[in-house]
Order: sequence, then structure tokens, then C-alpha cells
Amino acid sequence: MRSISIIGASGSIGTQTLSVLRQEKGISLSGVSVHSNLDTLKNIIEEFNPPHVAITREDSYQSAKEMLKEIGYQGEVTFGMEGLIRISTLPEIDMVVTSLMGMVGLKPTIEAIKAGKDIALANKETLVAAGEIVIALAKEKGVRILPVDSEHSAIFQSLQGSKQDEVKKIILTASGGPFLGKDRKFLEGVTREMALKHPNWVMGAKITIDSSTLMNKGLEVIEAKWLFDVPYDKIKVYVHPESIIHSMVEFKDNSIIAQLGSPDMRLPIQYALNYPDRHEAVAKELDFLSFNALHFLEPDRETFRAMDLAIQAGKKGGLSTAVLNSANEEAVSLFLKEKIRYIDIVSVVEEALAYFDDLGEITLEKVFETDEAVRSHIRRKFKEV
Amino acid sequence: MRSISIIGASGSIGTQTLSVLRQEKGISLSGVSVHSNLDTLKNIIEEFNPPHVAITREDSYQSAKEMLKEIGYQGEVTFGMEGLIRISTLPEIDMVVTSLMGMVGLKPTIEAIKAGKDIALANKETLVAAGEIVIALAKEKGVRILPVDSEHSAIFQSLQGSKQDEVKKIILTASGGPFLGKDRKFLEGVTREMALKHPNWVMGAKITIDSSTLMNKGLEVIEAKWLFDVPYDKIKVYVHPESIIHSMVEFKDNSIIAQLGSPDMRLPIQYALNYPDRHEAVAKELDFLSFNALHFLEPDRETFRAMDLAIQAGKKGGLSTAVLNSANEEAVSLFLKEKIRYIDIVSVVEEALAYFDDLGEITLEKVFETDEAVRSHIRRKFKEV
Repeated sequence: MRSISIIGASGSIGTQTLSVLRQEKGISLSGVSVHSNLDTLKNIIEEFNPPHVAITREDSYQSAKEMLKEIGYQGEVTFGMEGLIRISTLPEIDMVVTSLMGMVGLKPTIEAIKAGKDIALANKETLVAAGEIVIALAKEKGVRILPVDSEHSAIFQSLQGSKQDEVKKIILTASGGPFLGKDRKFLEGVTREMALKHPNWVMGAKITIDSSTLMNKGLEVIEAKWLFDVPYDKIKVYVHPESIIHSMVEFKDNSIIAQLGSPDMRLPIQYALNYPDRHEAVAKELDFLSFNALHFLEPDRETFRAMDLAIQAGKKGGLSTAVLNSANEEAVSLFLKEKIRYIDIVSVVEEALAYFDDLGEITLEKVFETDEAVRSHIRRKFKEV
Repeated sequence: MRSISIIGASGSIGTQTLSVLRQEKGISLSGVSVHSNLDTLKNIIEEFNPPHVAITREDSYQSAKEMLKEIGYQGEVTFGMEGLIRISTLPEIDMVVTSLMGMVGLKPTIEAIKAGKDIALANKETLVAAGEIVIALAKEKGVRILPVDSEHSAIFQSLQGSKQDEVKKIILTASGGPFLGKDRKFLEGVTREMALKHPNWVMGAKITIDSSTLMNKGLEVIEAKWLFDVPYDKIKVYVHPESIIHSMVEFKDNSIIAQLGSPDMRLPIQYALNYPDRHEAVAKELDFLSFNALHFLEPDRETFRAMDLAIQAGKKGGLSTAVLNSANEEAVSLFLKEKIRYIDIVSVVEEALAYFDDLGEITLEKVFETDEAVRSHIRRKFKEV
């Protein structure tokens, strides 16, 4: 019996991982963390009864403990970053599903790798902020980083049975988000509600906003660079509005291998959980007659500037992508609180990248310092301190 | 230095194999056969100087010998089936590219396998007529049958790194041919010239006609059954008019792996020649902006009856597919000679399948006997004896 933990269990990827576990009877759930969603936590305990639980939001911790006592929960309850690390390093687990959002996932991921746990990585910010360190550590510890993002899972699946030196190009597909085909003028009027509607995928708020700005695709390019060890000029992005081909690999003989499927995150989650095996489907079969046609377009890099901003930061390397990531997290959070306009998101990130221009060599400590510095810089600017 | 022979070197796949060899400096050409195209043979000798040559058409043999003498060719010249077998079993070769058309490829393929040569198989009739025998023999002799058909190469590439018991379905794509969307009424008026124009591929006459009737897709379903050891009900066909996705594999988790590329036969040829490696491209890169969209449709099985006729023969097994193949070769040949109408092709095959209904167990001898019996039955009927 294999055993896993899920950090960020009440989020979109977390709950879809639970949905996969309902079928995967050979995998037991040892630990979960939630931020503040106690209803979901209660349901998880009633259904899966994981022996370890962590709560990350301070003002939810007390009410969580009361709720857990009330339902007679016998397991261990921990709190905050310490709790996240505990859940990620439990001696009995083989793998951690990092399905929480943002930089907060970095530390527990590092600790899980140090403890020799495989990572099913849905927390792309970890690789964006500190890919160089995380990948080197994973190699040193001999642990697998299995992508859960649909695009990176597609690339990973397309690479099976191939040789690294035969890869010519990684082709990431992008849905284009809800504002595909719109111009800069249009973006000026985009509201929170408009940006929270994604055409193909149901996801958390932050990634939905990132998808709409194409920042998400930029972050994915950086993630792909680290996961698959390819230089930036070998990563190509096409807008593919139907989200049927989840991504592709072009080999040096100009043959392209692609992965297709219904837009259902449970497929890449299930693949990561069972790799290198495939199990009976949780996601439904792709119906080729359900879509009219598959389209491919060049992304509109002028209107959606975030993607190239991310790629430039990636090319610069070092701490630039940590700056990018923290600035974007803050900017999206300010937009979701309606403190800045939609088009300001990319400007905030751009300004931060210019401001934090020369930070020297990357170390884990500096990644965390940079994160704090960037966030307080932006908060100060928008009087959010 | 690896070495190969090409049987059917002046045909479409043969000349494209030569085009690949121009770049593949690590592969030498030991032997070629041509049917009657002495101009191409002369060019091949001047460029590649293979030490063994075979001519298969009787009335071309004398003029070939004279031509070869004239240009000072020093190699061995053989004739007919004996020549084909000689070229396919040369001690110095590792692989035979079987790029000739029709049942005539069966015997040399069998002899090549017996001699331990890998097969780059473009001669699908071999597997249609005697798949059971050929595959069993290849397994016994430990030789590889590497598909050269674009569809089967796509499937083979998509299967790399996978496990046989995780394959749920093979999805073959079909261009639909030049008469896609037409009805039976239209087919009644199809001429030789109309049928010889394929929208996406430049190929030999017989396969072009087979593509237009969808018989080719039926033959490919049978070929896929033998190459990939999957039952008929796990092979699905979609019409995909753009011929960009060359075929796919659906796994049991409902993930689909597909191979894409420019419609250029040199890609699957090069892959078969170098398997399991990939070399620098001969085919050009796929341009995703060169096509409007990718479409997928159910084939029109009522108008294009040949496909299901083939699949039914496949399901029946034994000698049925040998009957199918020989009848189709004769029918296409009669159509190309304008002795029968386009819509008669499928009727001739259907009648032959009904007439040669119960032929008992399959053996190699019986495959050849059946071939002769079916051909003389049809020739007699159309006074072609």
C-alpha cells in the first residue's frame, strides 16, 4: 500500500486528487493540510480519515481543533508552516501532492524532497521561484518531480521512451483564456468577475487570473525549462483555444508527439500518482465528435505582455523569476481585492522586476528574502501594509 | 556501418527511402530491386552503386542487363522472385525496406525474416494476406517489423515507453481521400483520373485508388491488428482531412498519445531506418500556422463500403484477408485498365469474399494458392485471362 499527503487539500487540485483517490484503492491518504476551509476538512476526515492534519490559517486553527474534537478525530493536528512541513515529511508517505497555491509551497516541497518523498507538483510557483535549487536537490536526493499541470503532464507523457538529446522543442499549448482576441483597450475595462471566468477549466482564483493575463503560460514556460531541462529558445507557445491537445514535444527528426484528452485535471493527477503505470480511467474518454475543430494561433504578445515578461525573467535567471512570482502573486491579490485594475497587474510586475534588478546569486535564503522584500515593496506602494 | 536493401526501389516509398539515404551517411545500400523502371535504376546505380540489383519484370530484364553493361556496372544482377529473395537475404544487410506494392512482397519478406533481417514494412499487403504467419515468424526469429506507413509509424511512435496491457484503443486517422463528403451517386461517375488525385499525399497508383475507396484504411486496420496485437473492436477510425495527426493511441486512463508531422513519408521511413534512435530531420518542420484547423469526422461507412468489408474479413480471419487483398489488387488493376467502373471495385471484392468463403486453416502455401485462385476467378469473370 502506497501512501501520500496532500498539502492544499481543499483547493481545486486538492479536491480533484481526492476524487482520484476514491478510485485508487491502492493509495492511502496519510496527511492533509487546508488553509481555512473547515467544511471540506470535515468531509475529508469523514471519508478518508487521514491520521495527520495541518491548518495553515491562524484564525482557523482554534475553530478547526474544536470541530475535530467534536467529530472525535483521533489524529495529529498541527499548525502553519510547521504543520505543512510535518504533513510533507511524514515517515509513512511515498509522495506529496503539492496542490496549494503560491510561494508558500516552496518550503514544504524542499523539506519533502530532503526527506526523500516524490513530489506530484501542482504548485508551479515552487519551480518559478526556485527551480534551480529544487531541481538540483531532487536530483541529489533521487526523488521524482511529477508534473500535475495538464501541459507539463502532457509533455512528460510525450517524452516517455525518448532520449533527452533528441528533443528539439517543447510546444506548450495555451487556451488563450477568456480574453482571447481582445485588444488592450478591452483589457482596460476588465473586472474581477470577467477575469474569473475561464472558458475550459474550473480552477482556483489565482490561476484563473494568471490564465487570463497569459502570465500563467509564462510561469509554465519557466516550469517547463526546469522540469525538462530545455533552454528557453526551445520552448514554443501556441494558443489552442479548445484545450484538447494539452502540449507536445517536437523531436529532432521533426516528428511531434502530443498528449490529448478531455480537459479534466484528474487525468494528469492520476498519471502522477501512478507513474510509470496507468490505471483505469477516472477522467472520461475524449469524444472527437464533441468539438468542431482544433485551432492553433500565435499568442498576442503585445496585448498579453505578461508572458514575455515572465520569459525574459526566466532568461535572466537567478532571482528574477522569484521577483516575478512574488510580484505577480501580490498584484493578483490586489486585483482580486479590487485595489488595482486588471491592466495594472502586469505593470506592477514589470515595475518590481525593474526595481529588484540586481540581487546576485540565487540561494534558498535569498529566495525567501526576495519574496518578503518584493511583497512589502508592492504593499507599501498600494498602502496595504 | 549498417546496410540495407530496398525492394521496389523505383516506387514512391523506394525513391523516398533513397532521399532519406542521401542524408543518412551511416547506412549503405547493398541491394535494390526495380520492376521495369530502368531510368531510375540507372540513377540509383550512378548515385549509390549498390552491389546487388534485381529486375522483376521479364521483358525488362534483357534491356536492363544491356543498360547495366553499358554503364559498366560490376555488381550482381538477378531476376524475378529469385532476384527479390536474393536482394532481401544478402548476408551483409541488417534490414530490408519492402517498398514494392502487392502480394508479390510476401515471399521475399518471409525469406528476409527467416534470414534474420529486420523489416521496414511499407508493403502492407504482406500483413493483410498473411499477418498471422508473418508476425509469428518474426517473433520466432527475433526480428523487428518496423512500420513505414505514416499511420502505423505514428502508432508505433505513440506506443514508445508504454505497456501493452495499458493500451485501450488504437485510433487510426484517414484523410478521407478525394471523395470525402460525396455520395454513392457521385461515386458512380468517378473516372480513373479523378481517383488518382489524392488531396494530401503523393503515392503510387494502387494505394491512391485504395485511399479513395477507403479500402486502404480497411487494410490498415488489419495491418494495425497484426503489428500491435490488438483486437478489431479496439481499433477506431476517424476521418481527419488535414493528415496532420497521423494516428493515436488511447490508454486505459483515457490519455491519448498522438504523433503529428508534415505529410511527408520520409519521416516514418527515417524513423524505421534508425529505430530506436531519431536523427536530424529530412522532413520539414510542421508549421502550425499553415493549416486552418484540424477536423475529425466519423467515416461514411455506407458510401465507402470497402473499409467495413476489410474489417469483416479481418474479423473472420484465416484466409479471408488473403482473399480480400488479392481480389482488391485485381479489381484496382481492372479499374486502372478501365475494364470496370469505380464502384465495381468494392463489388468485385465482395463477390470474391462470398465465393471463397470456406478455405480452412491458414498456411503459407494456402495463401499463395488462394491468391492464384482469386485472381484467376476474377480474370476469368472479366475475360482477362
